[in-house]
Amino acid sequence: MADFVTILGFIAASLTTFGYVPQIIKGYKTKHLKDVSLMMFVLLTIGMFLWMIYGILRKDIVIIIANIVGLVFGATTLGLKLYYKR
Amino acid sequence: MADFVTILGFIAASLTTFGYVPQIIKGYKTKHLKDVSLMMFVLLTIGMFLWMIYGILRKDIVIIIANIVGLVFGATTLGLKLYYKR
Repeated sequence: MADFVTILGFIAASLTTFGYVPQIIKGYKTKHLKDVSLMMFVLLTIGMFLWMIYGILRKDIVIIIANIVGLVFGATTLGLKLYYKR
Repeated sequence: MADFVTILGFIAASLTTFGYVPQIIKGYKTKHLKDVSLMMFVLLTIGMFLWMIYGILRKDIVIIIANIVGLVFGATTLGLKLYYKR
């Protein structure tokens, strides 16, 4: 049963994964990510990769899905940052 | 017992919380966060707040601690972004 707490978890997970999308759109449009910290996205991307492994080992599908999506967005931002680096 | 999976979880949590610190340091030093997406930090900060509530309801101390720390760092970055907004 999708109880209140599970729904809350899904809303939380959606915000902390799709939260990267505005940065990707902004970076893609402006082609300028000088103020964005490279190290932040390196650490967050590695962190989400480890969360994904953690979810697989704990057999927790919410953690797995949330971090695969987050990983894709985090890595995309990281890629943009490196691509437009001057 | 702090097994391998739990330790992995703690490492993952440390990376996805302390990952914001390089952005805070960079923003504080340069006083310039024009390229950083305001909406990203609004979404991530609300998301971590909801994760914290989720952790409290699930009585999961790792989720609670990770998201309190993440919330402080996320809100700090958001504050810097708003403060130095031109």
